[in-house]
Amino acid sequence: MLTYRDAGVDIDAAEELLRRLKPAIRSTFTPAVLADIGHFGGCYDARFTGYAHPVLVASTDGVGTKVKLAIRLGIHSTVGQDLVNHCVNDILCCGARPLFFLDYFACGKLDPAIAEQVIGGIITACRENGCALLGGETAEMPSLYAPGDYDLAGTIVGVVERERLLDGSRIQAGDVLIGLASTGLHTNGYSLALAALRSEDLETYRPELGSSLAEALLSIHRSYAATLLPLLERGLVKGLAHVTGGGILGNLTRILPKTVRAQIEWSAWEVPPLFRYIQRAGHIPEEEMRRVFNLGIGMVVVTAPETVSEVLALCAEEQPVVIGSVVPAA
Amino acid sequence: MLTYRDAGVDIDAAEELLRRLKPAIRSTFTPAVLADIGHFGGCYDARFTGYAHPVLVASTDGVGTKVKLAIRLGIHSTVGQDLVNHCVNDILCCGARPLFFLDYFACGKLDPAIAEQVIGGIITACRENGCALLGGETAEMPSLYAPGDYDLAGTIVGVVERERLLDGSRIQAGDVLIGLASTGLHTNGYSLALAALRSEDLETYRPELGSSLAEALLSIHRSYAATLLPLLERGLVKGLAHVTGGGILGNLTRILPKTVRAQIEWSAWEVPPLFRYIQRAGHIPEEEMRRVFNLGIGMVVVTAPETVSEVLALCAEEQPVVIGSVVPAA
Repeated sequence: MLTYRDAGVDIDAAEELLRRLKPAIRSTFTPAVLADIGHFGGCYDARFTGYAHPVLVASTDGVGTKVKLAIRLGIHSTVGQDLVNHCVNDILCCGARPLFFLDYFACGKLDPAIAEQVIGGIITACRENGCALLGGETAEMPSLYAPGDYDLAGTIVGVVERERLLDGSRIQAGDVLIGLASTGLHTNGYSLALAALRSEDLETYRPELGSSLAEALLSIHRSYAATLLPLLERGLVKGLAHVTGGGILGNLTRILPKTVRAQIEWSAWEVPPLFRYIQRAGHIPEEEMRRVFNLGIGMVVVTAPETVSEVLALCAEEQPVVIGSVVPAA
Repeated sequence: MLTYRDAGVDIDAAEELLRRLKPAIRSTFTPAVLADIGHFGGCYDARFTGYAHPVLVASTDGVGTKVKLAIRLGIHSTVGQDLVNHCVNDILCCGARPLFFLDYFACGKLDPAIAEQVIGGIITACRENGCALLGGETAEMPSLYAPGDYDLAGTIVGVVERERLLDGSRIQAGDVLIGLASTGLHTNGYSLALAALRSEDLETYRPELGSSLAEALLSIHRSYAATLLPLLERGLVKGLAHVTGGGILGNLTRILPKTVRAQIEWSAWEVPPLFRYIQRAGHIPEEEMRRVFNLGIGMVVVTAPETVSEVLALCAEEQPVVIGSVVPAA
């Protein structure tokens, strides 16, 4: 006699998890969430009062093998924050502010205590970004994931006024590139970093990092929304590039018109010790480092020369630095 | 000397995949998609002309261990359709029509040919449901997934007029439950089914199924949108329950007011042979079957007694059958 539980799927554990999380999920709700009416879907008021031509901006992402590191270290409360902040930064690059988020949590064996920490991180970051956690799916898939393993993905939906949508088209030669500091690897390059560091003890304190490798590697991917939304409001930004896979140049290329290119002054800022540590440990060529990692710059703001000082002043808390300029492509 | 590729992440393969898929992805675009402007997010016109009070309805889901079966059988073109149709049916239960979809595809080793088939299935179903594929994420995570394995999740966003939002509140004792036929297990109960069938040869033709077990099990989760959206327009529907995990009763409970309950006539329809085959093979108790599987009923329509014949006529292609009624809870 076989039951779902025998086959490795515990519906009661999933219900217990939802019961535990419900009050915290509700704490993310904004007035636009039409709570208690969407049984099969989350409902969100789409009147967007105050917008002449609202545009939804949506993005889906995961946190890559940073989850694997979190699992290995048994620290489950931060990857959810990485995920939400990553998604918030992505739609910010289109000029959008976050409205709501939905998560996907898949695991081999559902441990409600661990899942609660992971989704708790999502809830924390949703609250910090003024973003409602509108829905989600928890999947127990014993044949696909090893018992302690899980994966995490999420989708964000935000809104922007059509005429304030950032599409990079106003960027021109002479514009200035301002880099905002990252808090570490953010969510990119973990497979390479962990391969490079495979013989290192991650939990020993490293004076050059001011922390252990584990702590430095799990440092939370930060959200730039609180800093950048006011700049977007004031029209000071011609383009934003979130530095994810592809590095600084790869991501700038996504937003620049074909007539121009980015010229980076690689010596303009000091690459944080964590990146140099990884590079040394893995003998990783400099070109590969630039293609894979953010090297200390988590977001690039493109602005006109005459607004540089204003942007630098308004971003002061993000350790802003002029990292280059926009030049003709030819 | 170590590179990202050495660490198991092939950025070029991911770019090749996107290049291959781009024309097909574009084929899903509706006029509301603001194409070519969202570099870090997909952009969708949110003016919703014709709606007095538009409400967005969003849902995230996966396909569970049905992916594991697809991987085992080497048939990759259908799970994407399962995923989209599942999500479409979920928001349909709130009365919403689909607007756009975003997918998450995670794998151990990115094989562009396989990923193209998987995402091709998503594209096919998006087109069939009039839903734009607005974005997505492809993640290569060698340490989390075995080389041939992948997981799949997705998020749908739809819209409904506020006063047409189905919240079950109009359901009352005396209302009638009409079941629409499923095409198989849809996307629920695969861990249990595969455990029950572990000694069976899935690819042998089974006369009682009219197919092999593999074919019956991989049968595509169908979308009820084309049938049900016109009924919703006409106001013939008081509630819809998509029969997913939790079975017929579990899902009806999600939409019924607390003052009533569903009374199912379990003998009103014939449970398809596939379910009985699984039950026999796994010696699964009848109660467990009802809690885990749809047993041949993929969607339940709740309607008033006076509109039953009209609903039956309009759903004729879905083999509709009266499966019970709504009775007082006491």
